[in-house]
Amino acid sequence: MTTDLSAVLPDGSDRTAFSETVAALRELLGADAVRTDGIEEFRDPYDWPEWDTHWPSAVVQPGSVEDVQGIVRIAAEHGVPVWAHSQGKNNGYGGGAPRVRGSITVNFRRMNRILEINEELGYVVVEPGVTFYELVDALRERGGSWWPSTPDLGWGSVVGNTVDHGVGYTEFGDHAAAASGLEVVLPDGSLLRTGMWASSTSRAAHVHPRGFGPSVESLFMQSNLGIVTKLGRRLSPAPELFAPVRFRVWEDADLVPLIDAARTLMLEGTITNIPVIGGILGTAAMRAPRKAWFDGPITEADYRRVMKELGMGWWNLRAALYGPRRIVEAKIQRVREVLLEAVPDGEFTALPTPGDQVSEDTLPLHPDRVQAGRPSQSLLKSVEWWGPDGGHLELSPIGRNTGAEAAHIGRLLREEMEAAGFDFWPSICLFPRSIVYLGVINFDHSDPERIQAAYDLYESAIRRLGAQGYPMYRGHLRGMDANQDQFDWNDHAYRRFVERLKDTLDPAGILAPGKQGIWPAAYRDRE
Amino acid sequence: MTTDLSAVLPDGSDRTAFSETVAALRELLGADAVRTDGIEEFRDPYDWPEWDTHWPSAVVQPGSVEDVQGIVRIAAEHGVPVWAHSQGKNNGYGGGAPRVRGSITVNFRRMNRILEINEELGYVVVEPGVTFYELVDALRERGGSWWPSTPDLGWGSVVGNTVDHGVGYTEFGDHAAAASGLEVVLPDGSLLRTGMWASSTSRAAHVHPRGFGPSVESLFMQSNLGIVTKLGRRLSPAPELFAPVRFRVWEDADLVPLIDAARTLMLEGTITNIPVIGGILGTAAMRAPRKAWFDGPITEADYRRVMKELGMGWWNLRAALYGPRRIVEAKIQRVREVLLEAVPDGEFTALPTPGDQVSEDTLPLHPDRVQAGRPSQSLLKSVEWWGPDGGHLELSPIGRNTGAEAAHIGRLLREEMEAAGFDFWPSICLFPRSIVYLGVINFDHSDPERIQAAYDLYESAIRRLGAQGYPMYRGHLRGMDANQDQFDWNDHAYRRFVERLKDTLDPAGILAPGKQGIWPAAYRDRE
Repeated sequence: MTTDLSAVLPDGSDRTAFSETVAALRELLGADAVRTDGIEEFRDPYDWPEWDTHWPSAVVQPGSVEDVQGIVRIAAEHGVPVWAHSQGKNNGYGGGAPRVRGSITVNFRRMNRILEINEELGYVVVEPGVTFYELVDALRERGGSWWPSTPDLGWGSVVGNTVDHGVGYTEFGDHAAAASGLEVVLPDGSLLRTGMWASSTSRAAHVHPRGFGPSVESLFMQSNLGIVTKLGRRLSPAPELFAPVRFRVWEDADLVPLIDAARTLMLEGTITNIPVIGGILGTAAMRAPRKAWFDGPITEADYRRVMKELGMGWWNLRAALYGPRRIVEAKIQRVREVLLEAVPDGEFTALPTPGDQVSEDTLPLHPDRVQAGRPSQSLLKSVEWWGPDGGHLELSPIGRNTGAEAAHIGRLLREEMEAAGFDFWPSICLFPRSIVYLGVINFDHSDPERIQAAYDLYESAIRRLGAQGYPMYRGHLRGMDANQDQFDWNDHAYRRFVERLKDTLDPAGILAPGKQGIWPAAYRDRE
Repeated sequence: MTTDLSAVLPDGSDRTAFSETVAALRELLGADAVRTDGIEEFRDPYDWPEWDTHWPSAVVQPGSVEDVQGIVRIAAEHGVPVWAHSQGKNNGYGGGAPRVRGSITVNFRRMNRILEINEELGYVVVEPGVTFYELVDALRERGGSWWPSTPDLGWGSVVGNTVDHGVGYTEFGDHAAAASGLEVVLPDGSLLRTGMWASSTSRAAHVHPRGFGPSVESLFMQSNLGIVTKLGRRLSPAPELFAPVRFRVWEDADLVPLIDAARTLMLEGTITNIPVIGGILGTAAMRAPRKAWFDGPITEADYRRVMKELGMGWWNLRAALYGPRRIVEAKIQRVREVLLEAVPDGEFTALPTPGDQVSEDTLPLHPDRVQAGRPSQSLLKSVEWWGPDGGHLELSPIGRNTGAEAAHIGRLLREEMEAAGFDFWPSICLFPRSIVYLGVINFDHSDPERIQAAYDLYESAIRRLGAQGYPMYRGHLRGMDANQDQFDWNDHAYRRFVERLKDTLDPAGILAPGKQGIWPAAYRDRE
């Protein structure tokens, strides 16, 4: 037996006990699929600070669903926590690191089959190791008649992003809502399929939104109640005409009428994707680091200078229109009219492009292309804002989709961020009736003081924004408890309810303890 | 103490034990809110046959959430099953009758407040006693700038229909998907709020699709895990232009290209509501009973004669378009082109109507108006197909949204129905990627032989269609076990999973035992 055991052991395990766990896993998976050293490759370079405090004891790589079932059974038997990640690319949320130090992490890179591409009805079924790039490539090889919804970066897992409530930018930009038919390994190692897929005969496994009886699908998203091993996900038909539109406004105060106008367009069905409104720092960062643009705090004069240099507005809306040519042309007119009525000196542009001609040549800019389900790595550059060693975190308060509320959240966020010495770097994802207001915290992770400041800000902002009515949509490992604390109605009835489910389904308390602030009984009792 | 006890007692209760239960309920709710006789008014006239075999022991009418909490606590203490219905108007599914004879039914007519109408973001929050008519009236009194999605008949409960996975005909016709933020009384009497409403501070309680952590909202739909006491639901803005469209085709075989064309229009986003394709019997029945149209079995010549008389096609599609005038006009053109390309001799009509002018004058026909969220009672007439004592049931197999599959399901359904001596009375609800193929079983409930034939057909068709790949979307009390049996993958892993949740949340097994084929441990052990 190999003895290359990690320096970090699972809580409650000694070296002997742990070597037995590792031996059992190696017997199941093969020696090369269980690694206790040389695991730095699973460490996300943008999550360095995390890795140190959330180091796993081992990384295992299952090759099949049976392997995953075996892993959770061994973990339960040995009382060792297991943390599943898919690619580990959820930057800003913890990457491949577990919530509980010493957990065994399950990495899905070996389970990366696209199991079905249905071109008649427009859906795919994938394993957790499939990346967005792999999905995009597979669809393009088939002729590109179907588009996926993707996040900005394409290296992450389709399943991982979807089950973490990830957001993209097409009509299916609410990724969790676009999934139907999951296969799940439960903490006892048994297998469940959800929705119509719970019927062995149904032909609608991935196409009808739910089955007969209570729907349990969403129980396995942002969840430690099971490990998703297969997932169906809807695609959009490549439209005859694709029209990314942009609208730039010149004053901070223009955000209010801009958002109210965008909401009108979304509620009436003219805009059907997830539009984004951003400031200028993200774009500036993709060209050059902060020091090339600013010295010290950013004044209004600085901001306006860079706006001008980049040809951008104070706020910049992007959205996209999809469909038959005539309808998209009518939509472009409508969007232009409504936006210009709201902000008469705004600048409207549209780039109508035939759906079959979307490429880096026709649409060279990532923000346009990503709305056609084409991810890229271009945003990575922006992490280097404070220097080559960039770390980042994201605050993501949820509010109502109204201009007044967005402006209010922005003021709160800005205050928090600037008080802690960070730049206010907003971008706002618009859902028809709500917004997710992203406040990116970029920091220099070569500077321990700035790392600490970033994490302090992260947790305190979650609590302060939550208290004012704006809990977050997603959370980094370090903020999960603080985030869950905001869901406090009736003495945290929601958390207590999910804990009851957790204790029933995972009595050994081994699956991702603490994920999303949900702890198994054994851990709750320790407090 | 009153001794007007029902002839039917809860299973395991004797008259003394039951009178104690009733006394406890009367102490909580007041004597007039607990009825053990004179309860025929809660009996749905279209569900007569059901009522006899599913008679409750008492009907209770809570006036508040606290009352509901008290009811389930008393029920658990006394070991008496409780069945919640809202208005009891779910015709064809059991009306106000409980699954287990002798249950105490909870009727919500006294909890009928509309708690919020939000005109900025377009949503309402309602109690379970609010009917669709009440909601429609309240919205019209406010100026009619927001439309609800409703089923055909308006007398039922908004909450009841939504949590039973009911279907309507607007963009939010998938009612369950349009709900956000539920308040639920759990079987132990405790209270839970879901989604963003689980946060006491959040401003996005009913507008953002989910909260932080696993979403539990859908656990309480088609469910016996809790009783929903408040529910948020999205509304559609009244469009500048509303255009119901119809397309008639003349041959049975035209269904295939018709459905494939409709799918194209739905997937590309041109049609955003739930279209329906129907035959002619429903329309014929709204004018006169069967005997006025047909003698004996319906031949093709008969069918064509009535088609002509009604001015209808063999198949008749209806859909609706919503939005700014220019976009809707472009959509009308697109829909006409695609449908006529698919079935060149079909007949296309559109009735573009300004959104603020939708009324019985401008759109006299129910099928047009209901797509603007205006229910009516007109469909009730069709129940009298076999005579004034009409009963009806609905088969509702789910399949893929393809013409070939719809035609195949139709053949299977027709065979089942005609073999049992019933008319084949199809109507097909189109979701973007799936269909719900409704096969209405109309029968004469003054004839015990026909009642029995209807129920025999109902259960056998569920099993035979399920075996061939088409389980149902919803179920009458009598078909719930047969329906649940179709969800059989991995030795009924789904049912076993929900049973685990049931046993944890409702250890006394008192809440709606058997609903959707999910039974508490005590009942399972009896088998």
